[in-house]
Amino acid sequence: MLYLIGLGLADERDITVKGLEIVKKAERVYLEAYTAILLVDKEQLESYYGRPIIIADREMVESASDDILAGADTADIAFLVVGDPFSATTHTDLLLRCRTSTPPIPTRAIPNASILTAVGATGLQLYAFGQTVSMVFFTDNWKPSSYYDRIRENASLGLHTLLLLDIKVREPSLEALARGRRVYEPPRFMTVAQCCAQMLETEAERAEGVYGPDSLAAGVARAGSEDEKIVVGTLSQLCDVDMGRPLHSVVLLGRRTHDMEREFIREFAVDRDVFDRVWKRDYEGK
Amino acid sequence: MLYLIGLGLADERDITVKGLEIVKKAERVYLEAYTAILLVDKEQLESYYGRPIIIADREMVESASDDILAGADTADIAFLVVGDPFSATTHTDLLLRCRTSTPPIPTRAIPNASILTAVGATGLQLYAFGQTVSMVFFTDNWKPSSYYDRIRENASLGLHTLLLLDIKVREPSLEALARGRRVYEPPRFMTVAQCCAQMLETEAERAEGVYGPDSLAAGVARAGSEDEKIVVGTLSQLCDVDMGRPLHSVVLLGRRTHDMEREFIREFAVDRDVFDRVWKRDYEGK
Repeated sequence: MLYLIGLGLADERDITVKGLEIVKKAERVYLEAYTAILLVDKEQLESYYGRPIIIADREMVESASDDILAGADTADIAFLVVGDPFSATTHTDLLLRCRTSTPPIPTRAIPNASILTAVGATGLQLYAFGQTVSMVFFTDNWKPSSYYDRIRENASLGLHTLLLLDIKVREPSLEALARGRRVYEPPRFMTVAQCCAQMLETEAERAEGVYGPDSLAAGVARAGSEDEKIVVGTLSQLCDVDMGRPLHSVVLLGRRTHDMEREFIREFAVDRDVFDRVWKRDYEGK
Repeated sequence: MLYLIGLGLADERDITVKGLEIVKKAERVYLEAYTAILLVDKEQLESYYGRPIIIADREMVESASDDILAGADTADIAFLVVGDPFSATTHTDLLLRCRTSTPPIPTRAIPNASILTAVGATGLQLYAFGQTVSMVFFTDNWKPSSYYDRIRENASLGLHTLLLLDIKVREPSLEALARGRRVYEPPRFMTVAQCCAQMLETEAERAEGVYGPDSLAAGVARAGSEDEKIVVGTLSQLCDVDMGRPLHSVVLLGRRTHDMEREFIREFAVDRDVFDRVWKRDYEGK
């Protein structure tokens, strides 16, 4: 049996009791470590779970999944995923490969908290979110803006948009590859400030007025942990905010808001006077 | 401190290790039991957690929250919520009351799995869902259809829609109330079949062609449990499906689909020939 086990968001004690029981008795334990990370390292997980953990990077999951699945038709293999197992497409793909294996490998998912719901801590109502988008690191020549179209769609319905921010873990250095060596870049995690700056860059480029420097957003850091931080402000204000350690996420507010949302998020405002002014002018009753 | 602790979706072992540690040492433990239910009863939770549990029904949470919060400025109170603590508006409201108490009551949420992400088990990609809607039990004179407008909005963008189905727990009997007595109706949980029938009833009434008897949907029962059941079919097929014990949910498919979604959900089709025909005609490449 292949078990996809959600680890939740913060540390080793966010696993469910059911998930922990499976980890303790599985034959091998993998940790998917490229779509998201916990706030603790592999050693801390190993010591708490009492099991050695094999790090599964993108290369292994996408090209060497046979190694991961070896023997899973008879033995129990645990594949640990930060957040919820269905948060990333990759894991659905792994389940499909189990189905089509000969013999087929039975699978089971152990759900857990996801950033998709943990952003409810902002006070923004989860049922008023539209589709989720991803924001990748822009480079000098590559500034994909398809996310902008998705935000426009959500905004046209007055819905909030959750932006999941890029992380780069164990990315091969292209410069080194060109010289025939495989060297990894240091890990990078997009910050709330970087995301908001990129959003404004795209708006300046596309100029369709989907949002602007005065649009309200919530920056969320380390969602679901004791050290969670939420800051609400205009995109322009959030370009200057320091949210501390990763992971970060951003929620761009839709205009179909509820008064309880206002009351809840105002507490997190960088500057309440600015918040009240922008809210009254651009959001209230819109 | 008021702890809002997510219990996850199925049974007593879906609580996180962190959540369980808090339950074991809290001064009082409440269980919110009217927006969702686990598949096990209160006694099983009490025996596993080793703590007595006070059932918090809607009346208590909405009218007698002072009792719940009594002493929470100095002692630890655990308020257990099925799924994730931010899944229902009610809990945000409770947090607001803590903020405005004198003295203010510190709060903390322990996230967990939610139906909003557990429906990822269908293979439908979570980032392609629009806003979530609720379906209430229709009566002879009350058939609210605002959910239909929300589905139309999602459908106009090609997005999937999750429908959360009504549950009635400890509802006072209106008939008995009229005779001056407070008697509770037996609990009721909407089924996938009932939801799909109501959807078709609304479409027949509104006739805006947002969906129809041939629209594809996934019925999900007991999401996240070992006994999880997923069935994919047309709304008309799902009107006749028996998904067994509660809780049930429905996902109406959007047309902006991915081939991996097709491959994954086809496995759950009531009738693969019908599925293939409808998919090819109405979904593929739309």
